[in-house]
Amino acid sequence: MYLSKLFIPLLKNNPSEAKIKSHQLMLRAGMIKQSSAGIYSWLPLGFKIMKKIEQIVREEQNKIGAQELLMPTIQSAEIWKESGRYEDYGDEMLRIKDRQGKEMLYGPTNEELITEIFRSSVKSYKSLPQLLYHIQWKFRDELRPRFGVMRCKEFFMKDAYSFDLSDDEAKKSYNKMFFAYLNTFKRLGLTAIPMAADTGPIGGDLSHEFIILAETGESKIYADKRIFDINIKKHTNEDISINSLRKKYDEYYAVTDDKFNKKDFDKQVKKENQLTTKGIEVGHIFYFGDKYSKPLNCLVDLSDGKKVNVKMGSYGIGVSRLVGAVIEAKFNNNLMKWPDSISPFDVALIPSINKNDKTSYDKALKIYNSLKQKNIDVLFDDTEEHLSAKFKKFDLIGIPYQIILGSKSDNDKFEFKEIEGKTEILSLEEIQNKLLIKRNLN
Amino acid sequence: MYLSKLFIPLLKNNPSEAKIKSHQLMLRAGMIKQSSAGIYSWLPLGFKIMKKIEQIVREEQNKIGAQELLMPTIQSAEIWKESGRYEDYGDEMLRIKDRQGKEMLYGPTNEELITEIFRSSVKSYKSLPQLLYHIQWKFRDELRPRFGVMRCKEFFMKDAYSFDLSDDEAKKSYNKMFFAYLNTFKRLGLTAIPMAADTGPIGGDLSHEFIILAETGESKIYADKRIFDINIKKHTNEDISINSLRKKYDEYYAVTDDKFNKKDFDKQVKKENQLTTKGIEVGHIFYFGDKYSKPLNCLVDLSDGKKVNVKMGSYGIGVSRLVGAVIEAKFNNNLMKWPDSISPFDVALIPSINKNDKTSYDKALKIYNSLKQKNIDVLFDDTEEHLSAKFKKFDLIGIPYQIILGSKSDNDKFEFKEIEGKTEILSLEEIQNKLLIKRNLN
Repeated sequence: MYLSKLFIPLLKNNPSEAKIKSHQLMLRAGMIKQSSAGIYSWLPLGFKIMKKIEQIVREEQNKIGAQELLMPTIQSAEIWKESGRYEDYGDEMLRIKDRQGKEMLYGPTNEELITEIFRSSVKSYKSLPQLLYHIQWKFRDELRPRFGVMRCKEFFMKDAYSFDLSDDEAKKSYNKMFFAYLNTFKRLGLTAIPMAADTGPIGGDLSHEFIILAETGESKIYADKRIFDINIKKHTNEDISINSLRKKYDEYYAVTDDKFNKKDFDKQVKKENQLTTKGIEVGHIFYFGDKYSKPLNCLVDLSDGKKVNVKMGSYGIGVSRLVGAVIEAKFNNNLMKWPDSISPFDVALIPSINKNDKTSYDKALKIYNSLKQKNIDVLFDDTEEHLSAKFKKFDLIGIPYQIILGSKSDNDKFEFKEIEGKTEILSLEEIQNKLLIKRNLN
Repeated sequence: MYLSKLFIPLLKNNPSEAKIKSHQLMLRAGMIKQSSAGIYSWLPLGFKIMKKIEQIVREEQNKIGAQELLMPTIQSAEIWKESGRYEDYGDEMLRIKDRQGKEMLYGPTNEELITEIFRSSVKSYKSLPQLLYHIQWKFRDELRPRFGVMRCKEFFMKDAYSFDLSDDEAKKSYNKMFFAYLNTFKRLGLTAIPMAADTGPIGGDLSHEFIILAETGESKIYADKRIFDINIKKHTNEDISINSLRKKYDEYYAVTDDKFNKKDFDKQVKKENQLTTKGIEVGHIFYFGDKYSKPLNCLVDLSDGKKVNVKMGSYGIGVSRLVGAVIEAKFNNNLMKWPDSISPFDVALIPSINKNDKTSYDKALKIYNSLKQKNIDVLFDDTEEHLSAKFKKFDLIGIPYQIILGSKSDNDKFEFKEIEGKTEILSLEEIQNKLLIKRNLN
């Protein structure tokens, strides 16, 4: 892609309405544009990053055997009345009357609808366990939307639902999701800690929040440092292995504000291992048994002819929110570096272009075409701006690798730079090999 | 995927509410489930097919240089008041008041919002031409939703918008889309005819509908048969080549009801070339100049310092509707065959399994694992139903190729069948090679 063609409205200065760094960067780098309070359009740069995150979330769901479907954004109020949540949900639910006066709503979550789909589709114990998920836009009518995509009204979310015959079976499904979440966040370049959490309006008796560390986070967290040393790579998809992984996490103290107790913290964690910091919630999982299957009458036949309410859990990841969360974790001193796995481009090509001398442009064009041929996704800065101005733009765009054609490059060697890393003088072939190796690691 | 694990609630009989064959098949094959009038959930089988269609639409948009972004589903009423369409749009627009009483709506289309994004992002003629698109859920509050996904309320649509400096430049963008549309439908296994059309509520003076032939279609069409002989493969992405392709289509008479004129038809088309039949609209493109850029004050600076309203067009493809349209075109005599490019699976594996004898199951499992290793996406019918019952299910699921382990297969040769095609007795290796070759053609 030529930078001159890319639809990327960059801003020179921080917009005054943006109070946190993810909101600032997303506006300045032309990733999003507000269309009304708490509602954003995703411009090509931001969209591309969000799509890559979505795909990683999807792949990790598929790996544990979850099946993707898609529920609509607009739901009938009826099933919410069946579950009893229609009144409970309050003003954050966007309530709608259609042209015939029927009560509808824009789904803020999907426990009711998935239960309705399940109860009318599955009749026998033989079809269980079942893990279903979708990735769809949700709406919460926030009274004071703020912080860009971190607390907005229309947001993109993966929500999964598990269906089992017994509490014991259901815990296995819960643990599978626990495992998928750790792998998902790891692939996004994030260290996420699962923390025992309150269940809130979703209900139930078992719940974990997944929190990533960020100084600007809205949750205060208290943890035993050693929790960061757990190696998830040692664990496989098998129930036993996942179970032992969960036990490892349970061994270490890690809670947010609402579950914090100073006495317990001091008793369970040695002073030198105590970590108090801030974090951002990027995922939340719940086990709630028959909380929805009972009022919605979702039953399956057992082998002995009896009927039983299915045991359910729900599992959310904020996909659009993660774009902001990654920035909060990685954007420092006006310099962004996207993790390789979700970078909008594989590499930036930044030549110093002189109006009156085409040689540098022609050389860059040759490199560009060669990279394209190798399926390396490159953003080519074909503008005539000064190199220093170009670097400032790329500090915001955050592509982790740069090929620079400036004073240090001679005929067939070029400056290859990793953001916050070292700079080398390499041939095009060496650069291509490096990029292809990095891509294969993701 | 094991059929016993797939979330696919098959129905034995045609549901009484389904009047057309796409609606019948989609319900019977467990592709969709209605959640309320005109609003559907897409179950795994239907979802997978829709995603494949979406991806082909996306690739053809990218090929002509269109850039993907994503606008939200919920819009402010303000910009619709600026364009003058807020009142005009009538009851089909889903109007919403948020918790603070602000007038919002669920976007039925996006001319206003994209113009707003463009006017606040692009200031100079240097950034034009520009082609932007998104693939997003839309809502039209149909009074009488019917025919399943063919006329529903919440639907998935690709809408693109072009921005140019002059009418002449804009026609080039229009023609590029014209070309992309023909290629898109061709890859979906459909023959689509572009037909001069009225512009309706979108406005403008140039418009084409893309219609596919189907006896159950809602539009009556009148065409010169020879239009089917135009070979789009002979044309490339270049303006000149595309222009000559458009001219070829313009040479032949092809219109729907609203533009039909018997005198013209008889004058322009010899009796033996006259075709009168029915069709389904699967795409619609419009050129409308400054219809939106004028009221919304969307201007760019020219090189001489003057300002000009950008010239715009808009270009829609109904992605969810296409799932139904493909079925209307391909589902006959209770037998479905998906085009290879969008089939939910590459191949079906259908063994006759005997409760008391595991040999057939074990053999099928071996084949299954071998196909998986080659990245061939296979649906394995691991149930103990009779072969005849299995075949009936697969007639609905519509996977174009089947590997059958029944009486005709011996130790290492199996029945390989193409739906509506021939049956061969082949080794696993021969089958794999055939499937891989077919996949590479898409």
